[in-house]
Amino acid sequence: MTFDIKGILDGKRLAISRALSIIENQRAEIDALTDALHGHLGHAFRIGVTGPPGAGKSSLLDNLIEVWRQTGKTIGIISVDPTSPFSGGAILGDRVRMMRHYKDNGVFIRSMATRGSLGGLSVRAQDAADVYDAAGIDMIVFETVGVGQVELDVAKAADTTIVVIVPESGDEVQAMKAGLMEIADIFVINKADRAGADKAFREVRGMVDLRLKQADWKPPVLKTSAIKHEGIDELADQIERHREYLEQNDLLIRKFQDRFRMKIRDIIADRLSSDFWTQERKNLLDTTLNRPIEAIPSPVRLAQTLFKIK
Amino acid sequence: MTFDIKGILDGKRLAISRALSIIENQRAEIDALTDALHGHLGHAFRIGVTGPPGAGKSSLLDNLIEVWRQTGKTIGIISVDPTSPFSGGAILGDRVRMMRHYKDNGVFIRSMATRGSLGGLSVRAQDAADVYDAAGIDMIVFETVGVGQVELDVAKAADTTIVVIVPESGDEVQAMKAGLMEIADIFVINKADRAGADKAFREVRGMVDLRLKQADWKPPVLKTSAIKHEGIDELADQIERHREYLEQNDLLIRKFQDRFRMKIRDIIADRLSSDFWTQERKNLLDTTLNRPIEAIPSPVRLAQTLFKIK
Repeated sequence: MTFDIKGILDGKRLAISRALSIIENQRAEIDALTDALHGHLGHAFRIGVTGPPGAGKSSLLDNLIEVWRQTGKTIGIISVDPTSPFSGGAILGDRVRMMRHYKDNGVFIRSMATRGSLGGLSVRAQDAADVYDAAGIDMIVFETVGVGQVELDVAKAADTTIVVIVPESGDEVQAMKAGLMEIADIFVINKADRAGADKAFREVRGMVDLRLKQADWKPPVLKTSAIKHEGIDELADQIERHREYLEQNDLLIRKFQDRFRMKIRDIIADRLSSDFWTQERKNLLDTTLNRPIEAIPSPVRLAQTLFKIK
Repeated sequence: MTFDIKGILDGKRLAISRALSIIENQRAEIDALTDALHGHLGHAFRIGVTGPPGAGKSSLLDNLIEVWRQTGKTIGIISVDPTSPFSGGAILGDRVRMMRHYKDNGVFIRSMATRGSLGGLSVRAQDAADVYDAAGIDMIVFETVGVGQVELDVAKAADTTIVVIVPESGDEVQAMKAGLMEIADIFVINKADRAGADKAFREVRGMVDLRLKQADWKPPVLKTSAIKHEGIDELADQIERHREYLEQNDLLIRKFQDRFRMKIRDIIADRLSSDFWTQERKNLLDTTLNRPIEAIPSPVRLAQTLFKIK
């Protein structure tokens, strides 16, 4: 399987899909692919949507897609599934595929497993977004499940990060306070028709007021109901408002630079590591570990020995 | 600040605390410290406790500590906080410190932020556990919050991983199915006095039955109530049973080997990266990124250039 750069640039579904597979499977063509995409980036806006399981991110996204489609925008979705390094598949896939936009020609949906390293995840999400970007897609959305490193990581790949919680998320909000405040550009309290929505709203607003007194961008706190289709237009508006804020303050360029650094460090770490781990070094590690436990040197000493041989 | 290896081996609180600070802050002494600890490991048993926010992990742990203390065991806790890379502090710390065992001489508690890389997290949690282990502590517990990569990562550092859910976690269990099955050695349904506990119990049991037909170890599913102190003895028993299973099947050695590999790879990746990123290379990256965006080569090309210079 190789990639079809012309097909990607023309927005052809098959070419896009193949390119995404190359990235997901970390095939050897990645370098050539990302190199070919490089001159064709900068059109798309990149949005991260994150929050705990059950917050209704998929339904919210489903609604948001509808609003965007009405204004003629094309959309590319990358669902990042944090549990798949073991299972080998992206379990979100099924959920995402149920979305009614799946057959819409202007909507591209892809699940992506988080195999490999942390840095690797951001970089791959970012490479995947570059494929969509080069294909001329307008809005790229990274959807993630969970709380923790994966979000932080995906937030790095996004221009605007939306944190979705539900009225019941009180505990999580408390526990995640500092981390959420750092990654959220927009807070959404979804399922706002449920009891406790106003309390959650006040809590998050209080948090925002407290922490960001001197910041330029104060994250808006929105109430939505994906099921009742409420608050979605306002969410779309706030995304646009954040985009304008980024543009006016030269922050989009800084985000591009940060992503570039991440990518460079990833390429270099990969190459350094694959250059280092020669068969001889792998063998030395294996034979050392097969010794009786008291005859195994400390990792630091074994590392020194490994550096001495070729 | 330097470390006091004799103090650590003697189980002195101050020496242990200083060594943990060296690891947490990734100070230059880490290599010398871990090298000095290396010959004194293998006594402690390492347990990971994970689950969504609000599952009551801290209370459960609080109860478990009580059971262990009654049998004279000493305990070292490492709370891994997934949201701290940004906030720079470990927010779980406060919660953990509220535990009534904080002043018990046989209980050591430490929060740890997840700065840096994914591999880095496992390795640092593991280094911290090595400090406790060398100090003669019997039971080491990694406590994490969240769902996703951090857990998987910490599971790698543990001998036994306990996944704690609550009756309300239905959604999460569904979403995390495959990932949970891979990391859980023991399932705990905490807050089992709440409605839905039996349903959750049956669901998890069904999941276990379905997936692990031919596996040697079938994860037990326990119901506990930390508040009512119910089911804690059985949990302690199941931990012992899993430990015996690991010992009888030579799996503790395999876990040691896996951790050793992880540590070696981390040391080497760190050194390769710091050797590579000379001032000249950093400067080239910076000046390149300051060019007009259309004059910036692709990351792949810039990486090639970086490899050519010294």
